[in-house]
Amino acid sequence: MLNLGGPRSVDEVGSYLERMFLDCELIPLPFQERLGRFIARRRTPKIQAKYARIGGGSPIYEWTKRQGEAMAQLLDQLSPETAPHKSYIAFRYAEPLTEEALMQMRADGVRRAVAFTQYPQWSCSTTGASLNELWRELIRLNLRDAFEWSVIDRWPAHQAFVEAMAKKVCEGLDQFAPAERSSVLLLFSAHSLPLSVIERGDAYPQEVAATVQAVMERLNFSNEFLLAYQSDIKPFKWLGPSTEQVIRNLGARKRKNVMVVPIAFTSDHIETLHEIDIEYAELAHEAGIANFKRAPALNDDPLFVRALAEIVAEHLRVGRLHSSQYKLRCPGCENAMCRSLLNPAKAALQARAVV
Amino acid sequence: MLNLGGPRSVDEVGSYLERMFLDCELIPLPFQERLGRFIARRRTPKIQAKYARIGGGSPIYEWTKRQGEAMAQLLDQLSPETAPHKSYIAFRYAEPLTEEALMQMRADGVRRAVAFTQYPQWSCSTTGASLNELWRELIRLNLRDAFEWSVIDRWPAHQAFVEAMAKKVCEGLDQFAPAERSSVLLLFSAHSLPLSVIERGDAYPQEVAATVQAVMERLNFSNEFLLAYQSDIKPFKWLGPSTEQVIRNLGARKRKNVMVVPIAFTSDHIETLHEIDIEYAELAHEAGIANFKRAPALNDDPLFVRALAEIVAEHLRVGRLHSSQYKLRCPGCENAMCRSLLNPAKAALQARAVV
Repeated sequence: MLNLGGPRSVDEVGSYLERMFLDCELIPLPFQERLGRFIARRRTPKIQAKYARIGGGSPIYEWTKRQGEAMAQLLDQLSPETAPHKSYIAFRYAEPLTEEALMQMRADGVRRAVAFTQYPQWSCSTTGASLNELWRELIRLNLRDAFEWSVIDRWPAHQAFVEAMAKKVCEGLDQFAPAERSSVLLLFSAHSLPLSVIERGDAYPQEVAATVQAVMERLNFSNEFLLAYQSDIKPFKWLGPSTEQVIRNLGARKRKNVMVVPIAFTSDHIETLHEIDIEYAELAHEAGIANFKRAPALNDDPLFVRALAEIVAEHLRVGRLHSSQYKLRCPGCENAMCRSLLNPAKAALQARAVV
Repeated sequence: MLNLGGPRSVDEVGSYLERMFLDCELIPLPFQERLGRFIARRRTPKIQAKYARIGGGSPIYEWTKRQGEAMAQLLDQLSPETAPHKSYIAFRYAEPLTEEALMQMRADGVRRAVAFTQYPQWSCSTTGASLNELWRELIRLNLRDAFEWSVIDRWPAHQAFVEAMAKKVCEGLDQFAPAERSSVLLLFSAHSLPLSVIERGDAYPQEVAATVQAVMERLNFSNEFLLAYQSDIKPFKWLGPSTEQVIRNLGARKRKNVMVVPIAFTSDHIETLHEIDIEYAELAHEAGIANFKRAPALNDDPLFVRALAEIVAEHLRVGRLHSSQYKLRCPGCENAMCRSLLNPAKAALQARAVV
């Protein structure tokens, strides 16, 4: 299970930020080593304060662990012919890192492995960076032939995921008085990307929009909705409209009921618990939005766990190595290692020949 | 049937461009009157040359006329209880303009009218500008109470439209040798928008992406695909990735088979016949793309005509005044007349009360 991860304690914030700002696949900087370390060091106290306010750390490890265990259990039922299944966590910027996952997998005698991104929509900055790290680590640790791989690289409109998301929107709407519910504006919010990544041809905005459309179709367009992008970092130009600016504008338009729906992350983390629940809530209050809420994250919702298990079960049943989009490098890509796949699973190759 | 329209002869290019550059809802300019006229005059000879090369004018009037007549005929069968139906064309920048349509409607004794955008995906720059012009003209011509209105303001993922689009992709793929077909990259291309419009909160990129996703799902993801945006005008910053740049990059990546799929217009016009078929084809040739093709436009395809008729029939049957998104002004909107609806159809209001 690939994800960005988060610091489990305030003490881990420094190393977490350092890994992030040293990752040229996420944040390309001039003089990456020196400037990356400098920015990470400078931001650490501010970010530590944010983690302190949400209980001292990110819950993403706990949620991913629970999701993985429940998913593996369900998979044993859904796909007995490939059982037993076991989940491992490989975070990109926090422990457990890819190395730890791979070492544990080897110790457990694993042979067949599915690299399963926990980002529903593809971006080279998220899933791409995690997969590239996986291939690099396999080579570095001399594990090139240790496992046979296939990749679940995206699932933006998978029906079971969409159903789980729609359920969370409904749960979120229950926070509003019944008479107000139909007037709630759903503000779908995804992490933004620098425009330079968009211009390279990253699939992210198309796939995020596809998720939004599928969720709204599932809800029979019950409410007005918008899609905006959060968490941009100055001074780069990022994809808009910015969630922050939209909240301000909605206040100015006298909108009374607004619910943010995080659409690109599946667990609670600093962007939901701090940025939306604290920072944007304050902003909304100042802007005059009377009822500002957030839809709950998917976390360990049984419908979502079922979605994860179904996505993997289908992947194994069809026997595909990856989605039909995985091998398509962005037209503007300059990273030669993008879209690799080391030691592809033979079972998947054979299934493909049969299908 | 609302659309931008196009000059039917080279002589009409000047007035067409002038209307376009005087429309502050499409292209807001400082000193709109003077600067708009100046830019239009300066561009006229260049654009005239382009129209000369595609047969002396835009075919959009002919296609829209045929679509409308066939649609109205089919509607009489699909929805006999609302028959007879008749289609009128209201172009924003070329004849027949809105005034002409309204005058003809009055002369024909029309009472109930559906403002039907021919842009599948909403943008304030396209459908929004056309509708605002409609409401303005109704007031100016003293026809405020002459017709009862409802609006079909978007249909980005309507199943019949998606099916027609998927058919055109398949027809387009037939231009490639059978052995090459599966390796064709589908380059969906939509007209771009200035980033300022995106940041205001325009729904366009979300809806265009939704169409792309729906078409690819219908095609069972048979081919690799990308979404890009064409026809940006310097010096503003527009939404990317740019179709032009993507073609260049695909050439550099040694891609041999590329097919552009126009996804935001339903008829052939200068952006397909000249920009894609001539300009981009030359560019692709220079970039080394051996087989560069375009999917045919929907034009008078019977499946598309059926889609148009079904969209209207459903609209009349459900009795809605507009989509659930129409009344949601962009969060950053500064145009107070946006999302108006003059003299709403009582039949639709009653149906709504019953549903």
